[in-house]
Amino acid sequence: MTANRICSLFGIRYPLVQAGMVWCSPWQLAAAVSNAGGLGVIGAASMHPATLAAHLRKCREATDRPFGVNLPLLYPDIAAQIAVILSADVPVVFTSAGTPAAHTARFKAAGRTVVHVVSSARFARKAEAAGVDAVVAEGFEAGGHNGREETTTLCLVPQVVRSVSLPVLAAGGIATGRAMLAAMALGAEGVQIGSRFVASLESSAHPDFKARVVAAGEGDTRLMLKRLTPVRLLRNKFSAAVEAAESAGAGEAQLRDLLGRGRAKKGMFEGELDEGELEIGQVAAQIDQVLPAAGIVAEIMAEFRETLETLRDPGFTRFLA
Amino acid sequence: MTANRICSLFGIRYPLVQAGMVWCSPWQLAAAVSNAGGLGVIGAASMHPATLAAHLRKCREATDRPFGVNLPLLYPDIAAQIAVILSADVPVVFTSAGTPAAHTARFKAAGRTVVHVVSSARFARKAEAAGVDAVVAEGFEAGGHNGREETTTLCLVPQVVRSVSLPVLAAGGIATGRAMLAAMALGAEGVQIGSRFVASLESSAHPDFKARVVAAGEGDTRLMLKRLTPVRLLRNKFSAAVEAAESAGAGEAQLRDLLGRGRAKKGMFEGELDEGELEIGQVAAQIDQVLPAAGIVAEIMAEFRETLETLRDPGFTRFLA
Repeated sequence: MTANRICSLFGIRYPLVQAGMVWCSPWQLAAAVSNAGGLGVIGAASMHPATLAAHLRKCREATDRPFGVNLPLLYPDIAAQIAVILSADVPVVFTSAGTPAAHTARFKAAGRTVVHVVSSARFARKAEAAGVDAVVAEGFEAGGHNGREETTTLCLVPQVVRSVSLPVLAAGGIATGRAMLAAMALGAEGVQIGSRFVASLESSAHPDFKARVVAAGEGDTRLMLKRLTPVRLLRNKFSAAVEAAESAGAGEAQLRDLLGRGRAKKGMFEGELDEGELEIGQVAAQIDQVLPAAGIVAEIMAEFRETLETLRDPGFTRFLA
Repeated sequence: MTANRICSLFGIRYPLVQAGMVWCSPWQLAAAVSNAGGLGVIGAASMHPATLAAHLRKCREATDRPFGVNLPLLYPDIAAQIAVILSADVPVVFTSAGTPAAHTARFKAAGRTVVHVVSSARFARKAEAAGVDAVVAEGFEAGGHNGREETTTLCLVPQVVRSVSLPVLAAGGIATGRAMLAAMALGAEGVQIGSRFVASLESSAHPDFKARVVAAGEGDTRLMLKRLTPVRLLRNKFSAAVEAAESAGAGEAQLRDLLGRGRAKKGMFEGELDEGELEIGQVAAQIDQVLPAAGIVAEIMAEFRETLETLRDPGFTRFLA
């Protein structure tokens, strides 16, 4: 068996990527994760081009290790953001929420490693055909925008692994070393972790949102707004209004009106917990404290190692004898 | 580390339980799985008491190994079914879809091992308080009836494991040795597998339904009828009618009318693929052929063993060095 392809591809120690999340992933978080041996990723979606340029520059100053940037392909400012990314020293570009066909070649020509986030094996094959270097297979339990098939990480990862020859990162529902090992048993060669890093010291999430994530229990998130773009949110006053509108048969236009503009910023960055959109994964129920990002990486890798020792113990598989 | 608690509890070789499924789990299937080293389970829900008694007797004649029966607690005929179970030689009783508080003591007093199926850590704690011996933690991706929280197996299993001290079986999304190992990395001590055994030779599913399961691809199932009891079904003409009614704002009474009676039998047992309810999990997309049950058990355990060897290879964790 050769070394892990994700570690080789990114030039990192641990096959653990911190998701580049809207409103939560500034240079401080990305640099801390990269310095801890994972791959830190800046979330471009919530940044004006000049802000993005500053974050990329500061991240480069704060770490000599590889790091990445996440660029959703569905926003209007994308040309300016692409120009910023191409002129910055950021080796890995994650694209999501759109088709990679139009942009992958340009990033590849500029020497960048390109990874696309997918919610189905069908999209994974398209991403492979577009020339990406790896895919993130993100399941139904993940926070934020999500696929229409509602395929869970446990079902999605094996489907994607058997459909492409690229290395696959698993995402959605992963916040611990046990879940990281489970994902790798399914054939993923690494993981992308989002929610857990929302609740990090270096995250730019509002402290009240971090506290709400820590307080979240089972059943506290729901995949919503399926008539627009499905998004997993913490339940709050806003989400209750969405559910009421939906069960009264509200159409797309009404839901867009209800959503309005800037709700993600309001909720996640400004801490308006009642009226904002609070994007987080189901795994929030397992997140019990806010830690420094380096501590999160260390804790996950320690649990990964311990769990692996358990599986390697001959007692574990006495039933195979 | 002691031996696997699920193997000890049931007196079986492999910690692999075949789910007792409505219309699909006759004595032939249960006996084949038990004879192959797992725990076979008869599905009582679709059987009249006399039929159930016959299946339990024939299963006992066909294997000298332990086997079980699954009894959903929400059907009308339950008193007669309980009487049949108590007078039969069936050592393990799985209860589901209801509260175990009222029935566990009676089965325990009769010397039976009792397992309850749950979709949340909250229900797992209730089952533990009711005195069950183990719980099945069944996630959103599972076929058939499902929880309202929509928690996926990857998120549910760790939540349940940390909430009870009982051994936990993982269910939902598991059809392969890789997924079985993943579930055990999450802390489950065994798995319950349903969909894969629908597509077994010994299953009483209609051959056309088995063929449809084999043909199913990603996104072909959906959790539906959430205003009644959420159930995961293959998409077909009937499910399209349900979706149309739901998005037009149909209420509970209208949905009950649309559902009518006997649709599960029609679809799964009689093979009416357009008008029947076709209960199956998301993992159907990974099921590629109909095999004898013993072949399924052997294939899963071989892949489990191989995947474990991969994780035990020092190359796998070179990055931990």
